[in-house]
Amino acid sequence: MVVLKEMAKSDLQAMQAELQSLYDDFQKRGLKLNMARGKPSPEQLDMAMGLLTALPEDERPLDDSGEDTRNYGLLLGINEARELMAEYLGVPAANVIAGGASSLNLMYDTVARAMSFGVLGSTPFSQQGKLRFLCPVPGYDRHFAITEAFGFENIAIPMTDEGPDMDLVEKYVNEDPTVKGIWCVPKYSNPQGVTYSDAVVRRFAALKPAADDFRIYWDNAYEVHDHYPNTANTDQLLNLKTACDEASNPDIWYMFASTAKISFAGAGISALASSEANIADIERRISIQTIGPDKVNQLRHVRWFESLGGGKGKGLQGIKLHMQRLSELIAPKFEKVDAELSRGLADLDIASWRKPRGGYFISLDVVPGTAKRTVLLCQNAGVTLTEAGATWPGGYDPADSNIRIAPTYPSLEELALACELLCLCVKLAAIEKLLS
Amino acid sequence: MVVLKEMAKSDLQAMQAELQSLYDDFQKRGLKLNMARGKPSPEQLDMAMGLLTALPEDERPLDDSGEDTRNYGLLLGINEARELMAEYLGVPAANVIAGGASSLNLMYDTVARAMSFGVLGSTPFSQQGKLRFLCPVPGYDRHFAITEAFGFENIAIPMTDEGPDMDLVEKYVNEDPTVKGIWCVPKYSNPQGVTYSDAVVRRFAALKPAADDFRIYWDNAYEVHDHYPNTANTDQLLNLKTACDEASNPDIWYMFASTAKISFAGAGISALASSEANIADIERRISIQTIGPDKVNQLRHVRWFESLGGGKGKGLQGIKLHMQRLSELIAPKFEKVDAELSRGLADLDIASWRKPRGGYFISLDVVPGTAKRTVLLCQNAGVTLTEAGATWPGGYDPADSNIRIAPTYPSLEELALACELLCLCVKLAAIEKLLS
Repeated sequence: MVVLKEMAKSDLQAMQAELQSLYDDFQKRGLKLNMARGKPSPEQLDMAMGLLTALPEDERPLDDSGEDTRNYGLLLGINEARELMAEYLGVPAANVIAGGASSLNLMYDTVARAMSFGVLGSTPFSQQGKLRFLCPVPGYDRHFAITEAFGFENIAIPMTDEGPDMDLVEKYVNEDPTVKGIWCVPKYSNPQGVTYSDAVVRRFAALKPAADDFRIYWDNAYEVHDHYPNTANTDQLLNLKTACDEASNPDIWYMFASTAKISFAGAGISALASSEANIADIERRISIQTIGPDKVNQLRHVRWFESLGGGKGKGLQGIKLHMQRLSELIAPKFEKVDAELSRGLADLDIASWRKPRGGYFISLDVVPGTAKRTVLLCQNAGVTLTEAGATWPGGYDPADSNIRIAPTYPSLEELALACELLCLCVKLAAIEKLLS
Repeated sequence: MVVLKEMAKSDLQAMQAELQSLYDDFQKRGLKLNMARGKPSPEQLDMAMGLLTALPEDERPLDDSGEDTRNYGLLLGINEARELMAEYLGVPAANVIAGGASSLNLMYDTVARAMSFGVLGSTPFSQQGKLRFLCPVPGYDRHFAITEAFGFENIAIPMTDEGPDMDLVEKYVNEDPTVKGIWCVPKYSNPQGVTYSDAVVRRFAALKPAADDFRIYWDNAYEVHDHYPNTANTDQLLNLKTACDEASNPDIWYMFASTAKISFAGAGISALASSEANIADIERRISIQTIGPDKVNQLRHVRWFESLGGGKGKGLQGIKLHMQRLSELIAPKFEKVDAELSRGLADLDIASWRKPRGGYFISLDVVPGTAKRTVLLCQNAGVTLTEAGATWPGGYDPADSNIRIAPTYPSLEELALACELLCLCVKLAAIEKLLS
């Protein structure tokens, strides 16, 4: 074991020279790898190709109620899509709006609606002065970007191993009426892979917001995205709706989900769930906004998932079976990253990372002050990582230590190479820092 | 020829009794017909069923540039969809964003963006106080509903046979900085079927708005929706972009279109076109809003239209061929309505209507003060029409005389029945009015 910061300066310099030589070799190889975003690999997408022809051309695509999915109507989506996504989220179908390809768009629209029209009759956010939104960190950059765009002050809330720091969340939410929401990825969080504990979910449900238009934005992006499904090595998330109902807080939650990382990333179906009062409020607004979601694609998804699951009403079984197949592609990639990081960085005391049991990311913490440098070194040798700082509001990580790794898109061979380079860069940046 | 208002009271009463008896018979028949919305008929939709299997399941759906349409990316849509919709709208592809199923959603989002973020750097509309929007009447209720929802004062602008009253439009737009836009359906307008004349389009292009964030919202919903394609009996719309460029007004326009009434009403593709400066401004905003449109459905559409049109790059030919086939279903329905209205109402001097050469509606003007009554009488005998007044801002037609007829959904037989009833109700309401 060689703890880097205990090494003599001359040894550090020798190590730096050796690493630099390896890095120069990498640069000569002309790599072009991308681990920047949580994109499914082509092989994952190939496993959903049956979706393309799930609706035969010789049969009108009618839903169970006889409605023609090709035509106008059914603003909240077809019943069977609402039911499938309801089962997926663990809520009744009456609480669900089934949407189009992008759940991010549902989240954006939910914030935008509150800006223009308020929430359940409250004053529009745009007329309430400067407002705040809570952002667990490290977290999902695209969440933070939405509230930043609408002028919110995004407040960083540190993550713990059980979820956001709830003492801080309670303090903000229960005492500050300008706090209007919190972004959550409650299961296999982006980027750490933390699943909120039952106690954390219950504390969310029991919040007593100072603002009556405060809402929990619960982006359950990875509900079925276990790396080891059907084993003890999976996380369980307590149901937020149930907890909120028990805490007599029925309207405090919005849930979001999509099949983006189940079927096709850019052509799935999505869902927004909330209390019936919230859904009725939203329905009234979206009746002005749109003629409705693509119901043909909703039916296509339901039919295909049902065919995988073994028949009518077995869509969720189909999803789970499909996710098990996908996990056989995904889990080895996460294991490869973990193994490479262990091989390259263990014992040096310059980096730490979590080994998530699901989701799409690995969160790597490097020596404070070296994350940006590490990402730049990787970039200059042909491996693109998520920009350092992206996991913080405004793209600014005050410690400059967090790096998000997205292992799903590259092949195993590419991953091994990229991680080898990453470890090299983490070490180079750390030594530079120690020597400076 | 019996002009109703010149008839003696006793004759009117006799006629009323006779009509009432016919109406009573209708009521006993338990009709249930709907001419309320411009919905394609199932038979129209059946003609696009090839779309469902246009992408084979054994071939990765890559776009021309090799991008995987199944995955994330390409916020503005795939190139070939942008090119197809560009050709459709008569503008370069760089001016086009290809979107999802609902062009209404693109319009709503365009207004919503201006509310929150302004237009090309202007002050957000939400911070500019009370604003106004121009609404040609009779016009499209769902347009008016968007600006009403966002708190605009919707100003009714009378339609002429050549388009909106441009003297009034110029007065409002060029003198009043609170006027931020105008809703236009420039070809086969909803509901009259009027196509704006070249002179009107040029006057639009030459507007000198008092507000630099004024825009023309040009919903070209019926560009290829001729009832008699490839004949002299079609309308031609001057290209607004060309006219605006010639008038040195490059940023004043937004165009919208969709394939809703070409392929599937609820599962088509859409387009927003504007100047490159506007598109860049919009792109910056939607990069926060969404992961992008359903690109698989875009490729599905392009491939299917190209297969109809005879190959690569021949998508627009495919669309036109398909529209010709659809016109063979649609034109007879418009002719049937016209014939039935002529048979039932001509010579009485109580109603007038236009015979459009394309689009989805027939606009019927009845005796002032009797439109609501007519629609109610129809409703009570089982035929649902668009609510009277819907073609005006706020649903209030001050003359209470305009009724919108949507002939596409019912069968020819149903249309004949519905029109027979409609004529009866127009006459009954007129006589009631004369006798009151």
